[in-house]
Amino acid sequence: MNILVAGGAGFIGSHVVDRLLRRTDFELLVVVDNLWTGLQSNLAHIRDDRMKFVKSDVEVFNSELRFDEIYHFASPASPPWFIAEPARTISANIRGAFRLRELLARGGQFAFTSTSEVYGDPLVSPQPESYRGSVDCTGPRSSYDESKRCTESFLFEMSRTEGMRIKVVRLFNVFGPRTRPNDGRAVSNFLTRALRGDPIVVYGDGSQSRSWGYIDDIIDALERYFWLDGINFSGPLNIGNNREISVIDVALYVQSLFPQVEIQFGPPVAQDPTNRCPDLTRARQVLPGWHCKVSYEIGIGLTLDWFRKVGMSQGAGRANLPNKEI
Amino acid sequence: MNILVAGGAGFIGSHVVDRLLRRTDFELLVVVDNLWTGLQSNLAHIRDDRMKFVKSDVEVFNSELRFDEIYHFASPASPPWFIAEPARTISANIRGAFRLRELLARGGQFAFTSTSEVYGDPLVSPQPESYRGSVDCTGPRSSYDESKRCTESFLFEMSRTEGMRIKVVRLFNVFGPRTRPNDGRAVSNFLTRALRGDPIVVYGDGSQSRSWGYIDDIIDALERYFWLDGINFSGPLNIGNNREISVIDVALYVQSLFPQVEIQFGPPVAQDPTNRCPDLTRARQVLPGWHCKVSYEIGIGLTLDWFRKVGMSQGAGRANLPNKEI
Repeated sequence: MNILVAGGAGFIGSHVVDRLLRRTDFELLVVVDNLWTGLQSNLAHIRDDRMKFVKSDVEVFNSELRFDEIYHFASPASPPWFIAEPARTISANIRGAFRLRELLARGGQFAFTSTSEVYGDPLVSPQPESYRGSVDCTGPRSSYDESKRCTESFLFEMSRTEGMRIKVVRLFNVFGPRTRPNDGRAVSNFLTRALRGDPIVVYGDGSQSRSWGYIDDIIDALERYFWLDGINFSGPLNIGNNREISVIDVALYVQSLFPQVEIQFGPPVAQDPTNRCPDLTRARQVLPGWHCKVSYEIGIGLTLDWFRKVGMSQGAGRANLPNKEI
Repeated sequence: MNILVAGGAGFIGSHVVDRLLRRTDFELLVVVDNLWTGLQSNLAHIRDDRMKFVKSDVEVFNSELRFDEIYHFASPASPPWFIAEPARTISANIRGAFRLRELLARGGQFAFTSTSEVYGDPLVSPQPESYRGSVDCTGPRSSYDESKRCTESFLFEMSRTEGMRIKVVRLFNVFGPRTRPNDGRAVSNFLTRALRGDPIVVYGDGSQSRSWGYIDDIIDALERYFWLDGINFSGPLNIGNNREISVIDVALYVQSLFPQVEIQFGPPVAQDPTNRCPDLTRARQVLPGWHCKVSYEIGIGLTLDWFRKVGMSQGAGRANLPNKEI
């Protein structure tokens, strides 16, 4: 049995790889990653000969092997990165999915991490999976939002017409160790700036809310859904923390840990969603007992520890820094 | 100067090719079409050596040439066709767009026919271009809707980040000569069944409305927007007839021409939009004086004449008939 993880050196991907390696039912786990937003150091701790790393864009990755489980995590997930390179973002998601489909063994399972961004700037709150979203398909965030939507479509259509076994999750703002110092999303941004003694920058007035899910909680859900619980459900499945917190509250909490650090305000980000909160009704049915246990305050502390000890020295000096933090 | 029309043997594409050939400012017009839903007979009348036909899927078409104008019309547009072959539909649109971008000359213009289906089953009527739509990105129509949305995103992102000159139209239900007898959309369906003496089949109760734009009116708008009027506007631009007519009214009108033909009712089509009507405010600004002049009654008469004389004998007996008429 062979497993492929596309984007396996990334933030979500590398944590899933760690959990996959707890299993004893497979021979080979191939990680494909172009290290665009991923970091090889996210896998440096692994001492398991079953894992092979291949540096490649997912959409051109080729292999004689066929894979019984494919995890498609290959995509940037932070706005400055996908806004800077939209063609590459669309390509990784949808052309990546077409490529990976050709590598799936007959009867294999194709898992995909979609996103709460399929809901755009939502007009209902919390957002159930049935909500069709409010995405400007010509807007500056659309490369990410629309390529995730289109990849969902592709997978559900392959399920409908070809019986492909798929599992699709929609992840809401995840944070924690193994994000880049220059990742650009709010939590890592605030922490890395505070650690450097720089002012924290809030874009807009900070009233925009997010649902911050700590990585370990999110990976608990993915592990159960994707393989542990033997679930036969294609999704889409919202996975996230339904405690909705404004960006300014996160900034203030980080400031409480670094009292000398100022909070500054920058111009609002174009089409930044005003709110985001998962309706977890379906998740509670599919994953009974699962919920996010780590509060954002605790999660921020854990992430801060990691940035202090490990993260700040990683991923610096790369050519493809985003143009702007968000 | 070179022009490329992808999908140029199709319904919309072949009419645009006719108009392009009225121009005298180019040397070569390459039509790329895989004849999936297009018909070579749609181009059989052309006696202009500047036109070259290449039978190819657009996403793998290769050429040493670079094109000053690219028209991307390569996609099925009728539900039974895209519902039957969703992967191919997504691929033609988005992978087609990636491929065509590589063939665009520096400073060239990339035109794309998007669709009112980007609005899904709309919750506002009429639909302005700013409406973000109500599309189920996991539903049975999503291969078309989402690949059009994603291709719009790709083009607007290429405009934003690379300065690509783009023109994007959203076409509302177009009908007229050069649709296949087995096209599957309501007008051609009703006419071809009536011509055969078969009952007309209305799916659902027929109360769903559409805005039927006759092909000549639509092509008038495209010609002006794409090249005649020297317009510098990327779109998206709604193009269609804002006279909203229910499907049952069209069936009754066709029955008035064939009094012996019965109307039958079939099960509703999954996620069939309940309504569809363009807000033409922007079109009136961009194309002053343009509107749809041909009523659906006249247009149906013209289409009927064409099916009688030409259309009924075309496109029959092909292997890739859709499974179901809609």
